Amino acid sequence: MQGKFGVHALVFGDAWNETTARATCRAAAEIGYDLVEVLMFDPWTLDLAATRKGLADSGLGLRLGMALGPETDISSDDPAIAARGVAAVGRALEIAADLGAPAVSGITYAAFNSYAAPQTAAQRERVVASLAQLDKRAGDLGVKLGLEPVNRYESYMVNTLDQAVALIRDTGGQNMFVHADTFHMNIEEGDIPAAIRRNAAHIGYVHVAESNRGALGGGHFDLKGFFSALASVGYKGDFTVESFSSRVLSTALIGGVRLWREAWADAAKVASSALLAMRAAKAAAEDANKVW
Amino acid sequence: MQGKFGVHALVFGDAWNETTARATCRAAAEIGYDLVEVLMFDPWTLDLAATRKGLADSGLGLRLGMALGPETDISSDDPAIAARGVAAVGRALEIAADLGAPAVSGITYAAFNSYAAPQTAAQRERVVASLAQLDKRAGDLGVKLGLEPVNRYESYMVNTLDQAVALIRDTGGQNMFVHADTFHMNIEEGDIPAAIRRNAAHIGYVHVAESNRGALGGGHFDLKGFFSALASVGYKGDFTVESFSSRVLSTALIGGVRLWREAWADAAKVASSALLAMRAAKAAAEDANKVW
Amino acid sequence: MQGKFGVHALVFGDAWNETTARATCRAAAEIGYDLVEVLMFDPWTLDLAATRKGLADSGLGLRLGMALGPETDISSDDPAIAARGVAAVGRALEIAADLGAPAVSGITYAAFNSYAAPQTAAQRERVVASLAQLDKRAGDLGVKLGLEPVNRYESYMVNTLDQAVALIRDTGGQNMFVHADTFHMNIEEGDIPAAIRRNAAHIGYVHVAESNRGALGGGHFDLKGFFSALASVGYKGDFTVESFSSRVLSTALIGGVRLWREAWADAAKVASSALLAMRAAKAAAEDANKVW
Amino acid sequence: MQGKFGVHALVFGDAWNETTARATCRAAAEIGYDLVEVLMFDPWTLDLAATRKGLADSGLGLRLGMALGPETDISSDDPAIAARGVAAVGRALEIAADLGAPAVSGITYAAFNSYAAPQTAAQRERVVASLAQLDKRAGDLGVKLGLEPVNRYESYMVNTLDQAVALIRDTGGQNMFVHADTFHMNIEEGDIPAAIRRNAAHIGYVHVAESNRGALGGGHFDLKGFFSALASVGYKGDFTVESFSSRVLSTALIGGVRLWREAWADAAKVASSALLAMRAAKAAAEDANKVW
Repeated sequence: MQGKFGVHALVFGDAWNETTARATCRAAAEIGYDLVEVLMFDPWTLDLAATRKGLADSGLGLRLGMALGPETDISSDDPAIAARGVAAVGRALEIAADLGAPAVSGITYAAFNSYAAPQTAAQRERVVASLAQLDKRAGDLGVKLGLEPVNRYESYMVNTLDQAVALIRDTGGQNMFVHADTFHMNIEEGDIPAAIRRNAAHIGYVHVAESNRGALGGGHFDLKGFFSALASVGYKGDFTVESFSSRVLSTALIGGVRLWREAWADAAKVASSALLAMRAAKAAAEDANKVW
Repeated sequence: MQGKFGVHALVFGDAWNETTARATCRAAAEIGYDLVEVLMFDPWTLDLAATRKGLADSGLGLRLGMALGPETDISSDDPAIAARGVAAVGRALEIAADLGAPAVSGITYAAFNSYAAPQTAAQRERVVASLAQLDKRAGDLGVKLGLEPVNRYESYMVNTLDQAVALIRDTGGQNMFVHADTFHMNIEEGDIPAAIRRNAAHIGYVHVAESNRGALGGGHFDLKGFFSALASVGYKGDFTVESFSSRVLSTALIGGVRLWREAWADAAKVASSALLAMRAAKAAAEDANKVW
Repeated sequence: MQGKFGVHALVFGDAWNETTARATCRAAAEIGYDLVEVLMFDPWTLDLAATRKGLADSGLGLRLGMALGPETDISSDDPAIAARGVAAVGRALEIAADLGAPAVSGITYAAFNSYAAPQTAAQRERVVASLAQLDKRAGDLGVKLGLEPVNRYESYMVNTLDQAVALIRDTGGQNMFVHADTFHMNIEEGDIPAAIRRNAAHIGYVHVAESNRGALGGGHFDLKGFFSALASVGYKGDFTVESFSSRVLSTALIGGVRLWREAWADAAKVASSALLAMRAAKAAAEDANKVW
Repeated sequence: MQGKFGVHALVFGDAWNETTARATCRAAAEIGYDLVEVLMFDPWTLDLAATRKGLADSGLGLRLGMALGPETDISSDDPAIAARGVAAVGRALEIAADLGAPAVSGITYAAFNSYAAPQTAAQRERVVASLAQLDKRAGDLGVKLGLEPVNRYESYMVNTLDQAVALIRDTGGQNMFVHADTFHMNIEEGDIPAAIRRNAAHIGYVHVAESNRGALGGGHFDLKGFFSALASVGYKGDFTVESFSSRVLSTALIGGVRLWREAWADAAKVASSALLAMRAAKAAAEDANKVW
C-alpha cells in the first residue's frame, strides 16, 4: 500500500483562520503527517488564503471534506435548496482544483443529519441527476468527487459502501469514488472486510476513526483487520485519522456531531498516537498479506 | 448464568393490539422464548387487556420497555413537560406492577432522540431529583426502574454504562439498574468487556442486538465475548433480542429509529435464529469460563 | 456456499469396526450431518466392510483422512520408507475410488509429528516427485489428493496454505487441493482471511476445529470471520468438524495428538452443537456478504 | 499498569557469550527496553560474567527464563533425573539471587517437549513435592519461581493458567507465580480474558508473543484485548516480547522450537516495532478501562 497519512483538522479544533490553519498544519507536519483534511460546511466561506498559507508553511498536502446542510441539500424537494446544494458542491470542486486538492469528499449527496422519513424515489432520482452533472464538472476541473457513507443518524440515503457504489453506478460517474469511514462502517456494515472486498474498485479515500470516535486504540475497531482487508484488495489511497473531543470543538459542532463527552484533552498527543497506530496497522497488514 | 431469553415485540411489528399481541406472543412462545418485551412510547395508551390476553394465551413472561418523548422529557427545562415525564414513568411502573413485569426500563431519564446542545447542570439535577422520586415509587410498587444507555444520537445524557451507574449513584436509588444494549455499546463503549466488569453490580437487564440492528450474526458484534464477560461477572438477568426491519415497522417508527433499510423479511426466522445464537453464545461463554 | 457438513469420526472415538462404524454413522446422520470423515493412519487395515455398512445404513457420504507415519514417510531419506509411503497413499486413493469418497486428504506429504531439524532440499524434491506420481494415480482413479497444512509441531514441511499451494505448484498436480484446518491455521497463519483470499483457488476441503480443539464455541476461533472469508471467495466445498476429547480416545491417540485434557464428555452433544454453530456461521457469512 | 518492558534475548539469537550479551543488551537498551530475558536450558553453563557485563554496560534489568530438559525433568520416573532437575532449578534460583533477577520462570515443572502419554498421578505428586521444596529455597534466597503454561506439544503437564494455579495451590507455595505467554494461550485457553480474570491473583509475569511467534502485529493475537484484560485486574508486572526467526537461531534451537520458517530478517526492527506495539496496547488498555 502506497497511501499517505493525513489528520483531520477537526482533531485540533473547528475554527479555521490564519492562526489556527498555521498552527494545525505545523503541528500535523511536525508529528509526521503528509496531509491535512479541511472540512467545509460552507465552501463559500472557507478562508482560502489561510489554507494556502498553512499548506505552504508546512509543506502538507490537502484533502477537502464537505457536508451539505439543510439549506444546501441536493436531495431536497425544494428546487431552490437543491440548486444551492449543486452550486455548493460545484464551488467546492473549484476550490479543490484551485488549492491542488485531488478531490472533494464527504456527505456530498444529501444534508448531514437527521431525517424523519425514508428517501423517496423522486429524491433519489434528483440526487442521481445532480451527481451526474457534478461528476462532469469534476472531470472538467481535473478533480474527483467522493461519496462518504455515514451512519443512519447522519443520513437517510447512503449508509453503506454498497449504497455508495450503487449511487455511483446509477449516476454513471467517471470521476466519483467511495470515501470509507470506519466510525460509520462499525455501525452500518455487516462484515467490514467483505464490504471492502465487494466494493474495492471504488474505494478512493479512507477516514480512520475509532468505534467511539475517541483516540485510536481506545475503542474496539479492528484497525489491523481493516488495513489488512484494504491491503488484500490493493488499495492505494490515503488514510486520514478523524477523532473528536468536546475539549477542542465549538458548542455548535459538539451539538452537530452529538459529541457529549470529552474523549481526550491533548490533540497533539492523540494525533501523534494515531499516526503510530496507523503505521503499525499498515505494516502489520502488509506483513499479514505476504506469502510465507 | 440463569437468565431467561426474550424477544422484543418490535421484531414482529409496532402495532400492539389484541390481534398482534396474541400473534406475537404465540410466535415467540412457539419458537421457545420465555419472555416478550413490549415498548411503551406512551404508557397511557398501552392496551392492557390485549397484553394480558397475549401473555395468558402464550404463557410468556413480560418485560416492559419505555422511551420518553419530547412531551414527556423529565430533563426538560419546561416544568410542565418534566412533570408529564415523571407522571408517565410513574404510570409505567404501575403497569409493571399490575401486569407482573419485574421492571420498566429503557430511555427513562430523558427524551429519545436528538438534541443540539450538551446537557446543562440544571437538567441533570432535575433528572436526578425526578429519578430519586421514581425510585421510591418503584420500591413502593415492588418493581424496578432500569436506565438504558443509548448512543449519542438517541440521547445527550446517558450513552455508556459508566454514565448510567453514575446517575444511579447520584440518585441514591435502591430500585434502579442499568439496562445494557449491545447496539449502543458497540458505538459508545471503549472496551465492552471492561465496561461490563466495571459496572457489573448494576447490570440488571440486557438487550442483545447486532451491530447494524439486523439479524443476529449478520453484523460484527462479538456475541460470544459479550456473553463471556457477563458470565465472568456472574450476571443472572435476562437476555432479550432486539432487531428492526423496515419490512415490519410503521413509517413513523422507521423514521424514529432511522431505519432506512430492509434488514430482513421474515420475523419468525430472525427470532428463531436469534434464540439459537443466544443459547449458543451463552453455552460457549459458560464453557469458556469453566476451569480446565 | 453449497458445501455439505460432515463430522470427523474421531469425535466419537478412534476405534473403527462394524459396531462403532454403525453407531457413529447413525449418530451423525440423526444429528443431521451429510458426511462422516474416517481417518486412516494405515490404509491397509481400514475395515472396508464396516465402513460400507455404516455408510449404507446411515445414508452418509464419506470423506477419507490420512496421516503418514514414520514408517510411511514419503519425505524420508530412507528409500524403503519413502516407497512404503507412496504405496500407502496410492492404496488410500484406491480405497477412495472404491468407497465413492471424492478424495484422500490430510498429512499426505510427510510423517505426522515431530522432527528435530528443518527439511532439506533433497527431502522436498523427493516429496514433489512422489506427489506428482500420486497426482497422476489420483487422476487415473477419478479422485483427488488433498494436502493439509498442520502446525509446526505436527509437520516440518507444510504449515500454511501458502506452503501447500507452493507444493502443489511445484508438483504440477492437476488433481490436488489444499485441505484447510482451523486449529492449525489459528497457530500458523498471519491473517486468516488474507491467507484464504490468496489461496482461494486451491482450497478444496475444510476442517472446522476450535482454537483449543475442544467443543466449537469454547475457544476463541473466529468462526464467522472464517466462513465469511470463504463465502467471499466462492468456496463451494464441504465443512467437517473435528474435536478431540480424552474421554473418547485411546491412550495411543491421546499421546499422538498431545491431548492432555478431557475437553468434553458427550460426543453427540458436541457434534450436535457444532452442526448448529457451523450452520449459523455459514448463514451469517452469506448474510454478511450480501449487498444491502 | 506499572509494568516495565523487556525483550527476550532469543530475538537476537541463541548464542550468549561476552560478545553477544553486550550487543544484545546494548541494542535492547537503545531501542528503549527496560529489561532483557535470558533463557537457561542449562543453568550450570550460563556465562555469568558475560551476563553481568552486558547488564552493567546497558543498565538493563534481568529476567531469567528456564526450560527443563529430558535429563533434568523433575517429573521423571527416574529418581536421578528428577534430582538433577531439582538441582538445576535450585541452581537457577541462586543465579537469580546472585544477578539481581527477581525470579526464575518458564518450564520449571517438567521437561520441555513432547511426551507420548498423559501424566500419571505419581508424576504429578513428585512435581508437587519438588516444587514445594524449591518454593522454600526461593523464599530463602529472596526470589520467586514462576510456572509457564505452554502448549500441549511442549508439555504434558501445564498447558493453561488454571493448571498452573492448581499446581501452585497443591504445592502450597508462597513464592510461586504464573508466567503467562500469549503464544501458548492462543492455542490452549478457551477465553483469554476470562482465564486472566480467573487467575489474576497469581499472574506474575507475561511473555508477549504473536500467534505465529513472528513479529508482533503479523499474526492475529488480540494484543489490545490482552492488555485490557490485564489492566482490568490490576496486573502490575512486566511484559517481555518473545519472537523467533530461523534467521538468528542455531539449528538446534530451530529444531527444538519447531521453527521451520524465517519469520523475519531484522531483529532490531522487530524488537523496535514490538516495543511500540506493546506501549500502544498498554496505553489503549488503560484508556479503555477508564471511566468516561
